[in-house]
Amino acid sequence: MGTLMIIGGAEDRTDNMEVLKRFIALSGGRDQPLVVITAASTVPEKVWPMYEGAFGALEAQQVRHLQIAEREAAEDPALADAILSAKGIFVTGGDQKRLMAIVGGTRAGHALREAWQERGACLAGTSAGASFVCTHMMAEGRAELAPEKGAAKLAPGMGFVPRVVIDQHFSQRHRINRLLSVVAQSPFLLGAGIDENTALIVHGDAGLEVAGEGCVTVVDCRDAHTNIIDIAPGSVPEMVDVRLHLLPAGSAFRADAASGANAGQLPADAKAAPQPLNDFIRYLTKDH
Amino acid sequence: MGTLMIIGGAEDRTDNMEVLKRFIALSGGRDQPLVVITAASTVPEKVWPMYEGAFGALEAQQVRHLQIAEREAAEDPALADAILSAKGIFVTGGDQKRLMAIVGGTRAGHALREAWQERGACLAGTSAGASFVCTHMMAEGRAELAPEKGAAKLAPGMGFVPRVVIDQHFSQRHRINRLLSVVAQSPFLLGAGIDENTALIVHGDAGLEVAGEGCVTVVDCRDAHTNIIDIAPGSVPEMVDVRLHLLPAGSAFRADAASGANAGQLPADAKAAPQPLNDFIRYLTKDH
Repeated sequence: MGTLMIIGGAEDRTDNMEVLKRFIALSGGRDQPLVVITAASTVPEKVWPMYEGAFGALEAQQVRHLQIAEREAAEDPALADAILSAKGIFVTGGDQKRLMAIVGGTRAGHALREAWQERGACLAGTSAGASFVCTHMMAEGRAELAPEKGAAKLAPGMGFVPRVVIDQHFSQRHRINRLLSVVAQSPFLLGAGIDENTALIVHGDAGLEVAGEGCVTVVDCRDAHTNIIDIAPGSVPEMVDVRLHLLPAGSAFRADAASGANAGQLPADAKAAPQPLNDFIRYLTKDH
Repeated sequence: MGTLMIIGGAEDRTDNMEVLKRFIALSGGRDQPLVVITAASTVPEKVWPMYEGAFGALEAQQVRHLQIAEREAAEDPALADAILSAKGIFVTGGDQKRLMAIVGGTRAGHALREAWQERGACLAGTSAGASFVCTHMMAEGRAELAPEKGAAKLAPGMGFVPRVVIDQHFSQRHRINRLLSVVAQSPFLLGAGIDENTALIVHGDAGLEVAGEGCVTVVDCRDAHTNIIDIAPGSVPEMVDVRLHLLPAGSAFRADAASGANAGQLPADAKAAPQPLNDFIRYLTKDH
């Protein structure tokens, strides 16, 4: 299984480009074939040149733009071949609902899963591309001053992250309340908020690390007491005993249950994951 | 012991005035002597007319403005008498450092404690007046996108709330990170963030309620794992297992250990406090 990079949007593309450098390294290096998928965006002709410039500056030698403007195009066997032969796949921002409407369940969608899961490609998604990796995808929601019942809507995502709902631009757009509103209602999920220019890197079940500039915030309502099922839509739930974890850039944790296949990618200084982060890794990677 | 109303600032003064109405009720009604202390503000001549208008509209019959422009004035025996004979004391916003510099340790300061603790007055503080009730007072701090070591500074407060640090204008000014930075460093304290137009009402050790419009957010790092003692000032700590409670307006909890003296003030529908909120009530009211 390849590495998953879940990026909170607005990763630096002109300065130190730490997140993009890491993507290239996790894809095997700058001589490896990389693809950039801009299907989430309605203005791919503006998005692609930014990445073309950034990857050019980082001396990546084989970078292809895969535009995928509509669902029909996502069934093109040549497109699937390009995805399957890539060692790094970068899915840009835009709208995750648009991305899923075009790619979800298509040949390109299956190729993404196969490239990452079977062929070991590094799959990176930023902003909309971060959201869409989840089974239960944050589709939209208001950033209110408190969690509100029904403030956010879920939709089906790609299913690469089974039991964690991802939110992006997290601190910058003050999204903790919309994330809490989702996990309070569905404690089956953990919530992970990714800051801008920050990547949650999932090394399969071996462990995780945080790279870039900001933090990953994890919210866990499994043991929380809340009245959310009894209140009216739009009301603010009472919540007692939410657990919260804050992982700044530089954090790295090795899972107890690491099967080892991806362990070699973990930073050498990764610490043994405490129980709550072992759980988080399990929820990122296992179905039940 | 009287009731303590800890208000997150910007309580409504022109519309339904729910928080101010509650203050009048907890002070014994509109025929009781009330005082408004504006010492936190450099413009008391602008602050007082707002409250004069609001309490006038609510038909409070005996409201006095106590200005206290400097520390010397806070030693005036006539001022202390006015405080001691009040049934409701309302401390307005401004700067809590200014408020403490003028009132802390003076005859007026002692009168505030005596009026509330011995004579049963309702003591309400909003904004700066909310912060200053704590033993360990949030003096100042930046609202960053992540908790940062040293982002907030504590200073001595009045000592009415021994083991909870209060922050105000909480959701509106996105202050959760500065509050987390304090309690991560000092898990001896619990943190409570009060939203605008919202009151945390502490009925001694009998229980608490939340009135007004927003929420009270409680953060608890007693069992959290963090590296904050090992990182450089300004760095972002790793934090695992922070506990978070969210109490929207309308919440009311009766403590297990309620001694009963204040229990009569609790709303009839107050629920039995779960353990984390029993702890919170204990930290609000007991020294150790």
